[in-house]
Amino acid sequence: MKTIGVVTSGGDAPGMNAAIRAVVRVASGHGIRVLGFRRGWGGVVANEFMELTPRSVSGIIQLGGTILHTSRCKECETAGEQEKASENLKKNGVEGLAVIGGDGSMRGARAMSKTSGIPMVGIPASIDNDVYGTDETIGFDTAVNTSVSEIDKIRDTAVSHDRIFIVEVMGRQRGFIAAMVGLAVGAEATLVPEVKYNEEVLLNLIKVNEAKGKKSAIIVAAEGVGDTRKIAEDIEKGLGLEARLSIIGYAQRGGSPTARSRFLAAEFGNRAVELLLAGNGNRVVGIQNGRITDISLEESCNNKKPMDLSILQLARVLST
Amino acid sequence: MKTIGVVTSGGDAPGMNAAIRAVVRVASGHGIRVLGFRRGWGGVVANEFMELTPRSVSGIIQLGGTILHTSRCKECETAGEQEKASENLKKNGVEGLAVIGGDGSMRGARAMSKTSGIPMVGIPASIDNDVYGTDETIGFDTAVNTSVSEIDKIRDTAVSHDRIFIVEVMGRQRGFIAAMVGLAVGAEATLVPEVKYNEEVLLNLIKVNEAKGKKSAIIVAAEGVGDTRKIAEDIEKGLGLEARLSIIGYAQRGGSPTARSRFLAAEFGNRAVELLLAGNGNRVVGIQNGRITDISLEESCNNKKPMDLSILQLARVLST
Amino acid sequence: MKTIGVVTSGGDAPGMNAAIRAVVRVASGHGIRVLGFRRGWGGVVANEFMELTPRSVSGIIQLGGTILHTSRCKECETAGEQEKASENLKKNGVEGLAVIGGDGSMRGARAMSKTSGIPMVGIPASIDNDVYGTDETIGFDTAVNTSVSEIDKIRDTAVSHDRIFIVEVMGRQRGFIAAMVGLAVGAEATLVPEVKYNEEVLLNLIKVNEAKGKKSAIIVAAEGVGDTRKIAEDIEKGLGLEARLSIIGYAQRGGSPTARSRFLAAEFGNRAVELLLAGNGNRVVGIQNGRITDISLEESCNNKKPMDLSILQLARVLST
Amino acid sequence: MKTIGVVTSGGDAPGMNAAIRAVVRVASGHGIRVLGFRRGWGGVVANEFMELTPRSVSGIIQLGGTILHTSRCKECETAGEQEKASENLKKNGVEGLAVIGGDGSMRGARAMSKTSGIPMVGIPASIDNDVYGTDETIGFDTAVNTSVSEIDKIRDTAVSHDRIFIVEVMGRQRGFIAAMVGLAVGAEATLVPEVKYNEEVLLNLIKVNEAKGKKSAIIVAAEGVGDTRKIAEDIEKGLGLEARLSIIGYAQRGGSPTARSRFLAAEFGNRAVELLLAGNGNRVVGIQNGRITDISLEESCNNKKPMDLSILQLARVLST
Repeated sequence: MKTIGVVTSGGDAPGMNAAIRAVVRVASGHGIRVLGFRRGWGGVVANEFMELTPRSVSGIIQLGGTILHTSRCKECETAGEQEKASENLKKNGVEGLAVIGGDGSMRGARAMSKTSGIPMVGIPASIDNDVYGTDETIGFDTAVNTSVSEIDKIRDTAVSHDRIFIVEVMGRQRGFIAAMVGLAVGAEATLVPEVKYNEEVLLNLIKVNEAKGKKSAIIVAAEGVGDTRKIAEDIEKGLGLEARLSIIGYAQRGGSPTARSRFLAAEFGNRAVELLLAGNGNRVVGIQNGRITDISLEESCNNKKPMDLSILQLARVLST
Repeated sequence: MKTIGVVTSGGDAPGMNAAIRAVVRVASGHGIRVLGFRRGWGGVVANEFMELTPRSVSGIIQLGGTILHTSRCKECETAGEQEKASENLKKNGVEGLAVIGGDGSMRGARAMSKTSGIPMVGIPASIDNDVYGTDETIGFDTAVNTSVSEIDKIRDTAVSHDRIFIVEVMGRQRGFIAAMVGLAVGAEATLVPEVKYNEEVLLNLIKVNEAKGKKSAIIVAAEGVGDTRKIAEDIEKGLGLEARLSIIGYAQRGGSPTARSRFLAAEFGNRAVELLLAGNGNRVVGIQNGRITDISLEESCNNKKPMDLSILQLARVLST
Repeated sequence: MKTIGVVTSGGDAPGMNAAIRAVVRVASGHGIRVLGFRRGWGGVVANEFMELTPRSVSGIIQLGGTILHTSRCKECETAGEQEKASENLKKNGVEGLAVIGGDGSMRGARAMSKTSGIPMVGIPASIDNDVYGTDETIGFDTAVNTSVSEIDKIRDTAVSHDRIFIVEVMGRQRGFIAAMVGLAVGAEATLVPEVKYNEEVLLNLIKVNEAKGKKSAIIVAAEGVGDTRKIAEDIEKGLGLEARLSIIGYAQRGGSPTARSRFLAAEFGNRAVELLLAGNGNRVVGIQNGRITDISLEESCNNKKPMDLSILQLARVLST
Repeated sequence: MKTIGVVTSGGDAPGMNAAIRAVVRVASGHGIRVLGFRRGWGGVVANEFMELTPRSVSGIIQLGGTILHTSRCKECETAGEQEKASENLKKNGVEGLAVIGGDGSMRGARAMSKTSGIPMVGIPASIDNDVYGTDETIGFDTAVNTSVSEIDKIRDTAVSHDRIFIVEVMGRQRGFIAAMVGLAVGAEATLVPEVKYNEEVLLNLIKVNEAKGKKSAIIVAAEGVGDTRKIAEDIEKGLGLEARLSIIGYAQRGGSPTARSRFLAAEFGNRAVELLLAGNGNRVVGIQNGRITDISLEESCNNKKPMDLSILQLARVLST
């Protein structure tokens, strides 16, 4: 094996740069050349790349975003574009590709592997934590901590004004971020797409809390639960209490990765190169029960990651 | 003088607790008792207060929010309520009141001083920086830095995705936060209520930047400029470019105060007590041209704080 | 079971307050009264305690330190003092005790359980991560992230001055903090007590790096490796290069806990109360392979936690 | 005027990059070419430079350190080396030089201006805040806030252990950082080189505090006061209390600049180019009483910046 490629795809996540660095340095240590394709699959289709050496990934471990840039490329899903991408990879001698991204990127990797026959290894990096086959994705811990810091600040205002806050966090269709954030900030309630929103239950909870002397509340809601503005209105109308909405926005995607996100980036990048070297393509690396593992790309794409609802229950007990 | 009162009113601002601490400890040093009224003017009307000693303000210098809680109290503006508040102050022997808050609180202090005849000293604390008579309010520097940290993170995503971001910051009807934030993050454009929004100028600027090779942009917009969602749409429709809106919400109001906000809290609290001791009531303390000063409450309430637009111009030159 | 006690002992760790909150609220949910003993074992000996209710642990989840205060109590190890402590626990009707602390505190719990016959459950909280029976202690992730943030800043100066920095981190006799920090900051070398320091190897590594064009370096050293000043001198004398020492001090012990430290605090506190309720005393809770577990206090005290040296090897490969 | 140079010299300070960016973009706006010399005066002597365009200073506003690198160059003070530097500047057509650094760099600029006859403008950037002619240097506010954040964390441990901490901050021979930090963290005592250390006064203060019920204390000490370890020992020996020393090290020099440090960088860089354009060389820019100003390089070099001791007194009153 002489040359591999690396690409970051889909939404960016903190730690993608640390993962690029890991792939490049581990590969270089084995005498393998690394090509970094720019702007996700779009760059593979357009044949835009740069050679990455140990020196060119220097000083990036702590940076958010991705030096390779990224994109969500709708057009890349057509057969014609995939053919083009496949030809480019072959033309450049790419014998394996490390694909850093979320669940959409894993599906892209599967499609591309079928078109090109080139072994792909997926490195799960997504703040949403929604890749099947890993307990945690690169960037998840950072996004959670960014939200927790923000909400700790919002709590100051909530308490000072005896006010209720709905705080919307990211996570697309899943509640992983919301659940962990809700537990960590001591939210009075946590709303996730995996559990149907019940206005009556929520309003009752707030009433019970009020009776106990809790005049302010933080309700963490995943973006996937739908219109969070309506929830604030439900509270205002239903209970006659002041409720404000605050949306923790794109800051969750950026910022310097936490130690844990960097640790996963290092381990995942290392395992990905090892797999490619061993001719063990079409895998997705991950961490399961505290151990670095890998499963087949097919299995990762065909399954929906389950969510453990017990931490929601624990959060509820702890916010009494 | 034996007893003074202290109250935090209006929106909370980081550094209010440091200001309460300063008032209490300076007053105590002069043998004066301090009563802390709760929940702004509402607590004065309801006669809710606690005695504050040097020990009871221990460990609060670094906390956001206000241990006295605060409120915006519409009812308190009626003559009847003001009469009640006035009686409570007299009944408790309050010979002077330090009012910590924004421009609305200064107007409240003026009204209350007229009703009660008790000397009031205003301590400007507001993230909006909109109190006439001080170059800077307690909390402004903290809110600016919170926004800057957030936008530094959003920049990661903007660059990685070659995308344009509109970032809405607070400031109510004024652009002080936006202007300083725009300069500090190197925003490609900064929109403030003091300058009329011109769609054509903004779109042209983005086009010129694109021609220079700038593929991402951060546009900082004060909430006072109106519907920021529309600005994102203007860009998407007018230029066919991806533009996202991110609203830096209530986190700007909270969090641990910066050194500068704590410094102002210490100086303002100290000056406020000195003024009350000297029988010099109905003043608003401030910092002007680097010096701790005070002006009459009347003058502060009757004037609108001017905004220096030159930093917008400088920001524009620097973002080329 | 009507009453349990909770105590924080040994060095403080971020997340201890979140653990106290968890113990109190879970126990209260089962109708059990909780007594919080102050200043570690010293407070048990002196019978200093306060009743903790769900309201009295409100607003502490995000605070560093411990509201119960803590101490390292040498005298408490004598039979006489233990007898006194034992009597106090019984006198107050304490039927189980949650002991939050590091490995020293676990040994204290074992001794106290023998003297008093009262079931003890250990909750591992220590920045050092040195408790046998858990892959991670409460506070470890926070301390690691604090160090990583500091070193990211030091890297600015190291690069700007083309200079070598030795950065000493905490961890007492163990290298857990250093190993994770070294990986996360991309340290050129990481020195831990578990691996004998070899001056020649270190100097050679720096020379090789220099030849590759690396003019600055970060060397992370655990305090347990001994005199770090000497290492800086070794480099200056041996290589004629400028080397500075920076000691990341007590800030590592404090600060707001990360989401992960709060998560562990919630889970450990919950499990500890469950164990006491089930009459299952003299256990140490923990997280092993991603699952909340518990082992016997005896086993925890009699074993030394092993350290996985593979992340040091990975860090070395990644810093080439 | 066609070409100017820019150099960063002496110790690095957060905001140097923002200042480089400001110089380059303002100059470019006037059609002037900018050469960036590397590694301080050493790079001028060695004729190491790169042309800086608006694009090459993109994405650096938020970065600590200096992309031009810096050094303290002892040899550069010899006549021979200065002659070489002077020739290099002339050979490259440099008609004016912006020198970003502390008081040593200002003296270097004066010497170089005499040797070369080329107009120099000093931009004060130093965490120590010790340049005469400006109330505040670029980087000072950042270093202060970094220390304040650290000490807020140390306070957690100090309170939890009822312990006294001496915290040493930077500032070389001056107490500017210590004084502002001491006020902002609510230090029980602040030791600066400008006020002679008096063991008796310090010990007495701690005794008085203890009598008031203050069991922990933070004593902020500037590095310029000398052996801080001895102060900890004085307390342990003199009072029999536990006292720990924590040194806030090089992290103070690095990290992302605060909004205020970036604001000064923008304003100073802008004024520096304006002065060079106006043929107004050998000046030092600054902020005085809230206004951007400039004084002669000679005056700046010949005077020692005075320190206002009143904030030490205020800090003392506030920590009672």
